[in-house]
Amino acid sequence: MSDFRIRFLGTSSAVPTRERGLSCSVVQYGNEVAIFDCGEGSQRSAIAAGLSFSKDCSIFVTHMHGDHVVGLLGLMQTMSLYRRERPLYVFGPKGIVEFIKYNHEILGFGLTYEVRVSVVRSGVVFDGEHSKYRVRAERSLHSVLSYAYVFEEKDKPGRFDPRAALSLGVPEGPLWSRLQSGHAVRSPRTGRIVSPDQVLGRPRRGRRIGFSGDTRPTKKLASFFRGCDVLVFDSTYGDQNSVNAKENFHSTAREAAELAREANVKQLILTHFSARYKNVSALVRQARSVFPKTIAAKDQMVYDLSELS
Amino acid sequence: MSDFRIRFLGTSSAVPTRERGLSCSVVQYGNEVAIFDCGEGSQRSAIAAGLSFSKDCSIFVTHMHGDHVVGLLGLMQTMSLYRRERPLYVFGPKGIVEFIKYNHEILGFGLTYEVRVSVVRSGVVFDGEHSKYRVRAERSLHSVLSYAYVFEEKDKPGRFDPRAALSLGVPEGPLWSRLQSGHAVRSPRTGRIVSPDQVLGRPRRGRRIGFSGDTRPTKKLASFFRGCDVLVFDSTYGDQNSVNAKENFHSTAREAAELAREANVKQLILTHFSARYKNVSALVRQARSVFPKTIAAKDQMVYDLSELS
Repeated sequence: MSDFRIRFLGTSSAVPTRERGLSCSVVQYGNEVAIFDCGEGSQRSAIAAGLSFSKDCSIFVTHMHGDHVVGLLGLMQTMSLYRRERPLYVFGPKGIVEFIKYNHEILGFGLTYEVRVSVVRSGVVFDGEHSKYRVRAERSLHSVLSYAYVFEEKDKPGRFDPRAALSLGVPEGPLWSRLQSGHAVRSPRTGRIVSPDQVLGRPRRGRRIGFSGDTRPTKKLASFFRGCDVLVFDSTYGDQNSVNAKENFHSTAREAAELAREANVKQLILTHFSARYKNVSALVRQARSVFPKTIAAKDQMVYDLSELS
Repeated sequence: MSDFRIRFLGTSSAVPTRERGLSCSVVQYGNEVAIFDCGEGSQRSAIAAGLSFSKDCSIFVTHMHGDHVVGLLGLMQTMSLYRRERPLYVFGPKGIVEFIKYNHEILGFGLTYEVRVSVVRSGVVFDGEHSKYRVRAERSLHSVLSYAYVFEEKDKPGRFDPRAALSLGVPEGPLWSRLQSGHAVRSPRTGRIVSPDQVLGRPRRGRRIGFSGDTRPTKKLASFFRGCDVLVFDSTYGDQNSVNAKENFHSTAREAAELAREANVKQLILTHFSARYKNVSALVRQARSVFPKTIAAKDQMVYDLSELS
């Protein structure tokens, strides 16, 4: 089982605190890295975590507010200082192209690699041929154009059944590998064609992680996140500030939990806490009263998915 | 004596480390704040230091490299979240206007205060009518257009001599205050005019702090910094990397010390260390062999000038 984890690099809303940096969550999946939002300070947090700047990497920006995107500039510059060679893929709402283009011109950082920037729309936004995951986007509801994302491990072939293979006359060896990788083979004993579906269980559905970005809870998002293994959701406020949540187009911890329940996810992780909360345990309690499988993110926290089925 | 101190918010070169953020030095002078460079993470460092975001504040950018200027965006946004009302003055080389204009448009942060941005040239760049300091700029020598700055406390009137006042027939009381603030008064005893220069010593020269930004050492800078009380100088490299210093238009600690000696400053503070140095004590030793009054900056270090004459 290869590595599959979420690493939280920044979990504060709007302004950083001593303990929490601005929004940034990283999915490490095998040798690939997917970054969701990149607030100021993300590169420093990544350096503290010992993350590599040279791996296959795509960055998904939920919306064009400074606290979610300014960290891109330093990260891109530092990747150059580390002599990155692979292209960097950046996805985000309208404005992302200009943001990178103008700042690249004005700040004149000479890039050692290609940056491929794409404006997203709802649907599949990333599905690299050699990549083992794809990312879907859906409109969320914030004060500006904003998107939520789902990181989706590609489906894996079903489990191989050695006894079925033997009974069909296919001996252990190279022919098993062919079958496991989805190719039909001819049985040396019977001379008949054996197809993969005769020896493989049902394809295993890829695991999924939802990232809400800044948003009100919506029916559309509950549907978008349905069946996610993990949901990382805006939890800017507690119950006592539910009015602020509405006014500022954010969610309370309780609203995040209600959506998690409706979407039937396995694990809810609260993040993007208002700087007013020195301690978020009350928010976690409020959420758990609705959806018990809730935890709070904190900077440098790692959530391991490799043990999930 | 009012507060007069330098607070180092970021002391790393190019990339941040666990211990050092990107370039930012703050002069706190009474109720005024002058910020020299504003690399990514400056606002978080300022928050950790408990600095106010509402005071009279001017920001001086040495050059338009991301690691010296990107932090402006988050700082400006956070000042708005804190409902700043006073105008913010920003000074920097060509590009500073566009940098703020484009990012303000793309990131759409609604400012609660006015931002007055000026492109600097050599000479006095800031001399506010109600401000107790001025700032001069001079061209430095980096890979892009760059400036060094001197923060200059305005000259203060000479010390008041009570005995001289009494002997000229001016009794203690309101008339002394008038004389101390530079106004002539009439002696109630002699009926004669007493002028301030009869009772005040020579005007006291304001204290000065030089900030080099990223630069090679130059004759012009040695002249510009002549007689500074404190000089904060580029010390990216140690002796063993003097070739890198030349190639990348930076200085070694030793070169900083040679310039400090030539400029006859009182105190040299090394900063902007390459991330390769986990420990900068060797650099300090190299500098002290040339200029003994040398110390190394570190993040959150405070250098107090209020005790200097």
